[in-house]
Amino acid sequence: MSNSLGTLFRVTSFGESHGECVGVVIDGCPAGVQLSRERVQEELDRRRPSGQPGATSRREPDNARILSGVLEGHTTGAPICMLVENTNADSEAYARIADIPRPGHADYPAGVKYGGMNDPGGGGRFSGRITAGFVMAGAVAKAVLAGCGVEVFAHTVQIGRVRASEVSVESARASCRMNVLSCCDGPAAAAMEREIEDTRAAGDSVGGVVECVATGLPVGIGEPVFSTVDAEIARALFAIPAVKAVEFGGGFGLSAVRGSQANDPFTIEGDRVVTTKNDAGGILGGLTTGMPVVVRAAIKPTASVSLQQKSVNLKTWQDAELTISGRHDACIVPRAVVVVEAMVAVVLCDLGLQGGLISGCVK
Amino acid sequence: MSNSLGTLFRVTSFGESHGECVGVVIDGCPAGVQLSRERVQEELDRRRPSGQPGATSRREPDNARILSGVLEGHTTGAPICMLVENTNADSEAYARIADIPRPGHADYPAGVKYGGMNDPGGGGRFSGRITAGFVMAGAVAKAVLAGCGVEVFAHTVQIGRVRASEVSVESARASCRMNVLSCCDGPAAAAMEREIEDTRAAGDSVGGVVECVATGLPVGIGEPVFSTVDAEIARALFAIPAVKAVEFGGGFGLSAVRGSQANDPFTIEGDRVVTTKNDAGGILGGLTTGMPVVVRAAIKPTASVSLQQKSVNLKTWQDAELTISGRHDACIVPRAVVVVEAMVAVVLCDLGLQGGLISGCVK
Amino acid sequence: MSNSLGTLFRVTSFGESHGECVGVVIDGCPAGVQLSRERVQEELDRRRPSGQPGATSRREPDNARILSGVLEGHTTGAPICMLVENTNADSEAYARIADIPRPGHADYPAGVKYGGMNDPGGGGRFSGRITAGFVMAGAVAKAVLAGCGVEVFAHTVQIGRVRASEVSVESARASCRMNVLSCCDGPAAAAMEREIEDTRAAGDSVGGVVECVATGLPVGIGEPVFSTVDAEIARALFAIPAVKAVEFGGGFGLSAVRGSQANDPFTIEGDRVVTTKNDAGGILGGLTTGMPVVVRAAIKPTASVSLQQKSVNLKTWQDAELTISGRHDACIVPRAVVVVEAMVAVVLCDLGLQGGLISGCVK
Amino acid sequence: MSNSLGTLFRVTSFGESHGECVGVVIDGCPAGVQLSRERVQEELDRRRPSGQPGATSRREPDNARILSGVLEGHTTGAPICMLVENTNADSEAYARIADIPRPGHADYPAGVKYGGMNDPGGGGRFSGRITAGFVMAGAVAKAVLAGCGVEVFAHTVQIGRVRASEVSVESARASCRMNVLSCCDGPAAAAMEREIEDTRAAGDSVGGVVECVATGLPVGIGEPVFSTVDAEIARALFAIPAVKAVEFGGGFGLSAVRGSQANDPFTIEGDRVVTTKNDAGGILGGLTTGMPVVVRAAIKPTASVSLQQKSVNLKTWQDAELTISGRHDACIVPRAVVVVEAMVAVVLCDLGLQGGLISGCVK
Repeated sequence: MSNSLGTLFRVTSFGESHGECVGVVIDGCPAGVQLSRERVQEELDRRRPSGQPGATSRREPDNARILSGVLEGHTTGAPICMLVENTNADSEAYARIADIPRPGHADYPAGVKYGGMNDPGGGGRFSGRITAGFVMAGAVAKAVLAGCGVEVFAHTVQIGRVRASEVSVESARASCRMNVLSCCDGPAAAAMEREIEDTRAAGDSVGGVVECVATGLPVGIGEPVFSTVDAEIARALFAIPAVKAVEFGGGFGLSAVRGSQANDPFTIEGDRVVTTKNDAGGILGGLTTGMPVVVRAAIKPTASVSLQQKSVNLKTWQDAELTISGRHDACIVPRAVVVVEAMVAVVLCDLGLQGGLISGCVK
Repeated sequence: MSNSLGTLFRVTSFGESHGECVGVVIDGCPAGVQLSRERVQEELDRRRPSGQPGATSRREPDNARILSGVLEGHTTGAPICMLVENTNADSEAYARIADIPRPGHADYPAGVKYGGMNDPGGGGRFSGRITAGFVMAGAVAKAVLAGCGVEVFAHTVQIGRVRASEVSVESARASCRMNVLSCCDGPAAAAMEREIEDTRAAGDSVGGVVECVATGLPVGIGEPVFSTVDAEIARALFAIPAVKAVEFGGGFGLSAVRGSQANDPFTIEGDRVVTTKNDAGGILGGLTTGMPVVVRAAIKPTASVSLQQKSVNLKTWQDAELTISGRHDACIVPRAVVVVEAMVAVVLCDLGLQGGLISGCVK
Repeated sequence: MSNSLGTLFRVTSFGESHGECVGVVIDGCPAGVQLSRERVQEELDRRRPSGQPGATSRREPDNARILSGVLEGHTTGAPICMLVENTNADSEAYARIADIPRPGHADYPAGVKYGGMNDPGGGGRFSGRITAGFVMAGAVAKAVLAGCGVEVFAHTVQIGRVRASEVSVESARASCRMNVLSCCDGPAAAAMEREIEDTRAAGDSVGGVVECVATGLPVGIGEPVFSTVDAEIARALFAIPAVKAVEFGGGFGLSAVRGSQANDPFTIEGDRVVTTKNDAGGILGGLTTGMPVVVRAAIKPTASVSLQQKSVNLKTWQDAELTISGRHDACIVPRAVVVVEAMVAVVLCDLGLQGGLISGCVK
Repeated sequence: MSNSLGTLFRVTSFGESHGECVGVVIDGCPAGVQLSRERVQEELDRRRPSGQPGATSRREPDNARILSGVLEGHTTGAPICMLVENTNADSEAYARIADIPRPGHADYPAGVKYGGMNDPGGGGRFSGRITAGFVMAGAVAKAVLAGCGVEVFAHTVQIGRVRASEVSVESARASCRMNVLSCCDGPAAAAMEREIEDTRAAGDSVGGVVECVATGLPVGIGEPVFSTVDAEIARALFAIPAVKAVEFGGGFGLSAVRGSQANDPFTIEGDRVVTTKNDAGGILGGLTTGMPVVVRAAIKPTASVSLQQKSVNLKTWQDAELTISGRHDACIVPRAVVVVEAMVAVVLCDLGLQGGLISGCVK
């Protein structure tokens, strides 16, 4: 187990899907950052399934509790422990499948790794529910970054085979919360909703792609060669269950073009050096260039589908059929948007502290 | 700067492109692993440009020196310092461009970050040359893994717009070194060579995709939730200059299919549980499943092209034209194959130590 | 702030003296270790002031709550979050002294470091109360170690000027809990009680020395050169407020003798190599020798005394007199015994995991 | 093995006593710090045995080589690799004692830990010679600290039973290099020299105590609760072979006095808050108070003595007599002075970077 992330802004995750709570400890947050419970709650609410197409019927208030590190509305410099209680866990559905690992889930390798002692309820530590803790950490990171002029926002750019058209960073920022899917392309959003509904009706699930943008970063954030901006963001994004790929700027597409096209030309814009396009995704040599950091994460379809699947019975050591009941999302992509933002914010906060960004703006 | 990677098998990188040497310290290698200078040299030789289409004209013997941690052909448990000297550095070509940052390179953000005090020669710390150190670390990691039945190999699956056809893991292992491009598809390899030659003739550069496979891993390697197999491999791969995207198994393609298709069905195969396909890339919940780990890294075209480019003059604060001379690769993808292997091997060695893999096979 | 300790068995501390709670997250505890809430509570109870001479009048039940990582009486491999609530905090007494830092306390440097935003109540993060979290972590570590045959126990060897006579390791283990002071020398214990009572009557406080012994350790635990047994234990002990010195085996006394006397001669004892004395404190080259590890920590007198003291008024920038009310221990040494044990156990658990000790005996 | 120390200013040690070299990589040194090879050499020369009473007859030039991270007299922000070659290793003397572990040395536990694969020559990794790397790291740390007004110096306060009289911080700074023993008390130094000569004549060895002082530190350096100034300094000092105890300020002596005496009263001195005495050793709550940091390390007598000793023969599994030849120091304390300084400087540099000290003074 390795449940801590970060060097100076250090996030430690704890809790299980069907245990008492899911939470996080944030160590290294500067003192004096304004932080209210309400601000954390707002972020948590964006992760809740309510109102989202294809979301699980599991309903929990997810009330954020701040147990330490915050006094009278500001951080104290002490570790911040926050949690949400699990109030609506339904382990019944899971107990039946303990011997038959669910395809696409961690059941099988986790059972082997922990000798069968891990908590299986709702996936235990491997449940998407632990991202509630990530979101709370993200709320703190965003509060720190906001004080330094850095903004982090994400939007849905693909659900199944439906892709949104490309938009400028400015348009994306303006419109990324205009619908429940966080998709900046209205007609595409409508098609995505249909895709999700069709999938759900078929007892199946569907994945997608989330794009995240960070603006306002100074030049030179990142700690080469192993804690670069891209390396650390990628690492953090892969902590989100279901993420299977990460790309920056032009990403995989850059493999197919020539260097003269791939390179972003520099130009002077007032007192800034900018690039006339941003295929680098705001990162050169692992360092921020001052252009927006742009990253995309591919999210596989939820592994829990209602359709019958092929698995094995570990007790009888025979092939077996499995049908999963329980409550599941047909599409977690819209709920993942705020989680992706959180991971990017946490990493930028950590690298910002290492690179001297934060000390200039937090007292 | 953060030039160390790993928790128990810890790699620290040092050296610059045009300094005295490029090297690495490996801390935490178990005692008693057989390791010869020749074995390290073989890996280094695979990274050398000689004989590869589109490679730089810079020629250095890159003789591996082992300074510590190895005695009479085996590791001692002490930190292993290894280096190659820089014997053919030509800084002349770089001095001229100090004020005009090269598009696609780290020149600009690095200059800002280090207040102009960083070593600019050949890109300094941001040069691809530092991957010689990675390769030496990879040689040690592979020696450890080999003793545990784990094999790591990579091959080129795309150069520019030329893609190799898919092959089975067994075919890939058998044929991945059959040509200088490390491409398992002979006709595609020929087309790739032409693509590289055309690019070079045009004074341009071209990127590609490298796929890496690790076989023989036991079930359950990986340390959730932040040091999972995918998170740590992704992080390590982004330390390779020019990598812009990383995907596991079905990767981005999984975003477009349904859960019933994406999930890999389990089946019993003798005394093992296997999956009948491997879209998960051998990883569920961040843990190895016992199937081969499969990862692909997208490598952007080398930023150094001979064509004239648009940049800025930081001294005169005006837009400027830039033509890069110096010696460069038109395509670094074939040389990156062994580097990708090295990073994957280093991560698996570290996670294997944490997961108890290694203690069982190294005395 | 750096509130995490350890590499594989990693303890993260949170909470303040007068906040909602004091707690700890333990990451990396192996799965399958038997752990009951009652076992944790027993350790916590040893830290409580009740019945101890010279202890604070603050009375809290300190009920251990286990929020995650434990299921049906055994650890699951997931992070273990545990906490005790603060139910009897009396911040009134502290508010009055915010402008006048208490001598011997962290008030002054903490106020400067955190720009006055730190929680001052009861010393906040700098209160001895945070050691309740350490003790809970120690309970888990001891449970892991017990399964491997390792036992950790501490006893009081000095209070003020009263020193206990030396005892053998076997006697110490047998008698270390025979009185409320955890002193193995009955007559000395009586004199220590008088010393504490005299001190309290004088409105003053008194310190002492705690010795901790770990038995059953195999040969070769410790990770040179920076994570040796002595280095890591020393570091962990200095996290206990009031510890000002740490020595192993002969400690400072070894400075005054000759090498021929200081060296512990080896001899064969059945199938073991032992030393005929143990001035090395069970550690050579930072590695365990198989002899008991012996460490002593010097604990300064509690800084809170009722006597009038000289300080400064940071608002008026003038010298000032200060008289501390509030509830305080006249002597914390007896309560520190279980805390010292906890820190030693946590370190040995971490180094044991790194050194392969634990994998052999858990599960 | 764990051969790295520090979070932001990270020192990785490598090399063995009788291998090719002993060295260090320093990662995280800010760019732009003036650093010459000569400055590093001066520090190394203070560690050399030449001219010191009781020092080994091993003579090596110990020429510092800087392999990376420094360009034209200043640091570049890249990792700094430095080493000294081993030119005068005499392994003959050691080979004979491989089966008979030397009392007081790491031979026995190291042989067990590394399965006999560790390098035994001259103690291998456990030799005091590896502190040459520490000293080089210290030279860099001192260069960084000097730019921030922080000075670190150490002196010998005890050799065997001879203790120097106490001196003020100012006197110590002025006189700490006035003799070859780095002792500020002239008559005591003379007695110490005699003590060393007597010991050597007797074929024996003698230890002592080194005190180190750091001045010019701002208030609030240190990262509670686990990376406090005292915890991190203690940890680093225990990496020096032969250190068996560490105390700060009043240290063990504080156990015997009352709180009213132990507390250092605050007073206003111009624009500073100071204390009228410094029994806290410049540290409260693990944070610097602005007063000089004062720490003492007890150094046991060198384990290598010429007198016959009792040991065991691991091959015949019988008790055995051992007489050590080879070249050894009768007293390493004077040579340890610069090593103690180095470890303290390295820690303060790391904590200074974390606490924002350095960013204000290094560009």
